[in-house]
Formats: sequence, C-alpha cells, structure tokens
Amino acid sequence: MKKISCLFLLLTISFHLLAQNKDVQAKAKEEILAAETAFCKMAKEKGLEAAFLAFAADDAVICRTTKVYKGKEGIKQFYGKPDKKNDELTWKPSFVSVSDAGDMGYTYGEFDFSGTRAGTTMTDHGVFHTIWKKQKDGSWKFVLD
Amino acid sequence: MKKISCLFLLLTISFHLLAQNKDVQAKAKEEILAAETAFCKMAKEKGLEAAFLAFAADDAVICRTTKVYKGKEGIKQFYGKPDKKNDELTWKPSFVSVSDAGDMGYTYGEFDFSGTRAGTTMTDHGVFHTIWKKQKDGSWKFVLD
Repeated sequence: MKKISCLFLLLTISFHLLAQNKDVQAKAKEEILAAETAFCKMAKEKGLEAAFLAFAADDAVICRTTKVYKGKEGIKQFYGKPDKKNDELTWKPSFVSVSDAGDMGYTYGEFDFSGTRAGTTMTDHGVFHTIWKKQKDGSWKFVLD
Repeated sequence: MKKISCLFLLLTISFHLLAQNKDVQAKAKEEILAAETAFCKMAKEKGLEAAFLAFAADDAVICRTTKVYKGKEGIKQFYGKPDKKNDELTWKPSFVSVSDAGDMGYTYGEFDFSGTRAGTTMTDHGVFHTIWKKQKDGSWKFVLD
C-alpha cells in the first residue's frame, strides 16, 4: 500500500511540475512582451541610449552590421554619438518563444527608423530580433539585440 | 533524528541538482559549438541551402535585412535562388550562452561571405548570431539565424 501511495505521490508531483512549467513559459512570454513594450516606450520618451542602457543585461551585446558592441560601454559607444541623439526607432514583436524553464527567450518583428545624418533625414524599415534573459531579481533584460 | 536525516537528504539532492545543472549547461554549450561547426562544414561542402535546411528547426526563421523567411519553405525561397547557388559563407562563433536547463542557447561571432551577382564578385564581412534550441531527439537545431 505504501508503495502505491508513493507512486501516486510521484505521479501527482510530476503532473504538477509539467503543468507548472507551461504556466512558467506562458508567464515568461507575457513578461518578455511587456519588457519589449516598456523598452520601446522608453526609447520614444528618453532616447535610444537611455533605453538600451536601462534594458541591457550586464553581459549584453548589440550587433550592428560589422561589429559587436559589448556591455553598457558598447551601448554608450554606439548610441552615445551626437548624430544618433535624435534618432527615432520604434518596433513591435510579432513572435516570442521561451526556453523550457522560462528563463531565456527571444522575439522578432519589424522596426521603423528615422534619423538625420549630415543634414539629411534617413528612414529605414526592417526586421529586429532580441534575446532576453531573466535576471536574478526577476526582471527581464536583453542579452543580444 | 528522522527530521535531520530528511533535511540532510534534501540538501544533498539540492546540491546534486545544482551541480547537475552546471554540467547540463556546460554540455549544452559544447553541443551547440559542435552543431555550429558541423553546420559551417556542411555549408562549405554541400552549399548554403542544404546546410540551412539540415540545421533548421521546423519553426526556424532566417532574418535577412527587411524580411523574415519562415520555416524550411522560407529557407528554400531565400537560399534556393540561382544566383545564391555558389555563395560561400564561413563563420566562427566567439561566444556561446545557454538557458538554465540547457535547452536553448545563442552564439555570435564573425562571418565572411563571397558570392557573384550579375557577373561581379562580392565579398562581405560582418557579425552573425544564431539562436539554438534542443530538439526532442536531443539534437540541436537553429530557431533564428
């Protein structure tokens, strides 16, 4: 009888953990999309440099054409340039996926860019993708953009 | 006495799980780097279309400038074009990171490209990044490139 009770308990725990995992993944997806929305909102209100600094993990990198800019110093180096101060970038994820334990995930979607270089307004439209990692304090920060 | 034994057992299990997690992550990193190497080798030997098809997860996407190409059909659409048949692409990851449970990870590094468009040879050098997901059969496939 004890053996059957034990088996029943193990099965109950297993099902519970599986169900919990699905909940964790759904919650992680929601949180990533919320972080992405807040990130984009901050970029609009406070500029790209401030927003990228606020949402970057310590080991984050931003990949830009031919170079990987590493960490917050890299972000300052890339977005801190005077000609980028008035750049406008908006984006919206159309897809989100997360790891089994809901601690890592990625998004992709489309972006719109406008900025001025040497007096000329430039616009661009393309595809963005971001990798997110849950931090120790429970917040989501991007690790690659 | 029973309570102490139980606590000891729980602590032992916790430490064991933590240590196991580190092993799982280290193993996942090794496996991703091996998959990346095999992917690049196949690209060299069998061409880009074959290699991308072989290493793509069913829900994989490839992001190319202004468009997201979805699934294997998307890969065929992008890499199946006649002018891309002789393209050469080599790449080497310089970084790999994985999720807590070692089921998702990403790499980045540099690539070299050469191809011919309208009789003219073009070369390019830049940054690549790939997101990998462990499949049900234990193999690693990319979900975003």
